[in-house]
Amino acid sequence: MAEFNPLCPTPFSTDAKITLAHGSGGIPSAELVSKLFVPALKNKYLELLHDGAVFELGNSRLAFTTDSFVVKPIFFPGGDIGSLSVHGTVNDLAMCGARPLMLSLSFIIEEGFLMADLARIVKSISNACKDADVMVVTGDTKVVEKGSADGIFINTTGVGTVEYEGISPKAVRSGDNIILNGAIGLHGIAVMVAREGLNLETNVESDSAPLWGPVEKVLKSGAEVHCLRDATRGGLSSVLNEIASAANVGIEIWEDSIPVPEPVRGACEILGLDPLYIANEGRFLSFVASGGEDRAVDALRSHPLGRDARKIGRVTNDHKGSVVLRTNIGGRRVVLMASGELLPRIC
Amino acid sequence: MAEFNPLCPTPFSTDAKITLAHGSGGIPSAELVSKLFVPALKNKYLELLHDGAVFELGNSRLAFTTDSFVVKPIFFPGGDIGSLSVHGTVNDLAMCGARPLMLSLSFIIEEGFLMADLARIVKSISNACKDADVMVVTGDTKVVEKGSADGIFINTTGVGTVEYEGISPKAVRSGDNIILNGAIGLHGIAVMVAREGLNLETNVESDSAPLWGPVEKVLKSGAEVHCLRDATRGGLSSVLNEIASAANVGIEIWEDSIPVPEPVRGACEILGLDPLYIANEGRFLSFVASGGEDRAVDALRSHPLGRDARKIGRVTNDHKGSVVLRTNIGGRRVVLMASGELLPRIC
Repeated sequence: MAEFNPLCPTPFSTDAKITLAHGSGGIPSAELVSKLFVPALKNKYLELLHDGAVFELGNSRLAFTTDSFVVKPIFFPGGDIGSLSVHGTVNDLAMCGARPLMLSLSFIIEEGFLMADLARIVKSISNACKDADVMVVTGDTKVVEKGSADGIFINTTGVGTVEYEGISPKAVRSGDNIILNGAIGLHGIAVMVAREGLNLETNVESDSAPLWGPVEKVLKSGAEVHCLRDATRGGLSSVLNEIASAANVGIEIWEDSIPVPEPVRGACEILGLDPLYIANEGRFLSFVASGGEDRAVDALRSHPLGRDARKIGRVTNDHKGSVVLRTNIGGRRVVLMASGELLPRIC
Repeated sequence: MAEFNPLCPTPFSTDAKITLAHGSGGIPSAELVSKLFVPALKNKYLELLHDGAVFELGNSRLAFTTDSFVVKPIFFPGGDIGSLSVHGTVNDLAMCGARPLMLSLSFIIEEGFLMADLARIVKSISNACKDADVMVVTGDTKVVEKGSADGIFINTTGVGTVEYEGISPKAVRSGDNIILNGAIGLHGIAVMVAREGLNLETNVESDSAPLWGPVEKVLKSGAEVHCLRDATRGGLSSVLNEIASAANVGIEIWEDSIPVPEPVRGACEILGLDPLYIANEGRFLSFVASGGEDRAVDALRSHPLGRDARKIGRVTNDHKGSVVLRTNIGGRRVVLMASGELLPRIC
């Protein structure tokens, strides 16, 4: 139960502490935002709780978004903290319907970090920027004493121009189709395997990729796109729950339509994890008004990052605020938002 | 001597490591930027090496700047990591001649951090934002395991609109007057005293403050302003050296005109430090074309953050690229850029 401290009113008890779950993208993360950050920093942009803020400046509409990256290990199959820092932020812009333009880049580095590793990360950032057609235009470097950080942390903050209006979780409505651009679970499992030194029979590579390309395809397809959301921290289940809650709709997804690669399925069984909660860094959902779904899927499939695109569910007026999975054996189960720490330091 | 690694070409030796000095704002920081970051991330914005990037978008000119804050301790006389995170970034925008508008806010928090301390920091951010007339419009929170970070690190990235054009280190020329808005050394010494538990006879409070107010006064004064620069990491000496080098001019400053508060002088004597190298967070230099200096000083003095404004030096055609101090006893000495670690984690 919260106690009131007149100096620092907080909805948390006076001896409450930050846990790994507060950074997980699940319920504790959402509570931190809704109970502490939003009330203290109140403004109409922050309250939208979108992947980024959208605002007008002169005759332009800008999207603006930030992410810090603490992934462990910093190098993993299919990427590293450098490429991830670019992809994470350009994707948050893309999910606002914005073309990514400019990034800032800020390092916090532990004393003693190998310069050769920093050079490798910077090279990876440079390649990822070329790939995503963005520029790093400003930066900062801080160094802390040995033991005061874990190697390297990176913040990127992005500016983009909004090319398609009205894309927002609140625009989702009953009847919308939900389209996914590819197989899930690869990023989270690739990082876990690298971190824990697990020995899987096949290699799993992160799906980390810049998504403006396939997003632009959907947006130009003629389908009426209501919302876009990348399924990062907390996985597919958490972002679906966020949207069900924001739009006050029910969401139904179909187990047999959601592609889970065999090695991801196997690793999840070994680790006792559910693929629906595993983070992705190159997968996103398009919420498309009824009638536009085929055009949207076709458009996505014309792009290398959408080759496996398919419809995985729909929005309903039933069970508002909840996500229900229709299982392969014909059952139905409620898919909850992530509540614990899941996989810390996945991005 | 650098060895060539075909995978990661770096101008540093293969076993080189990051040191605290790489985050100090002195020579090693500058080398990291010029030898590693700029060549890898090459573009016309980054190459300007200004406090922030300036670019056009539609009919607006935007400034964009980022800073991560790792100050230790997180609470110190006159401020905390929260207020500092706002001031540092709005000031970098102001130094581009830009009115600060929007901030992003990203936390990296160590597991076990007290929620009450986080609430206090968020409150301080909120107050600093009101004071600086900016909004936090988007954010992110990551949590790392106990021992993987030192309490809390904060990144803020800012967007502002450029209201005055052509303000740049490269615009500085011989004959310009150099105006400082107040006494130096307070922020660095306040943090050092708090960190080391030093017992000075008088209290020293950080000068941390948002500077767009006094900057706007100078810019509207009618004086021809060529450059603005806040004297943060590396202190007055490092920023003067940066500008002497960027504009290829000589800079002369006068010891008896530079206000150093008595407690700062005392602490510097005890610690063996030179006030010219101590970080400030509310002090900036205006480079003003000859003839406009009195108007600029008067305008600054009309603002609470410029009450002690005065001319402290001038730009010359002599000793290009160097900064020379005329001492109180009539001597002259070259003031070098900071080369070591000075005071780590001052911001």
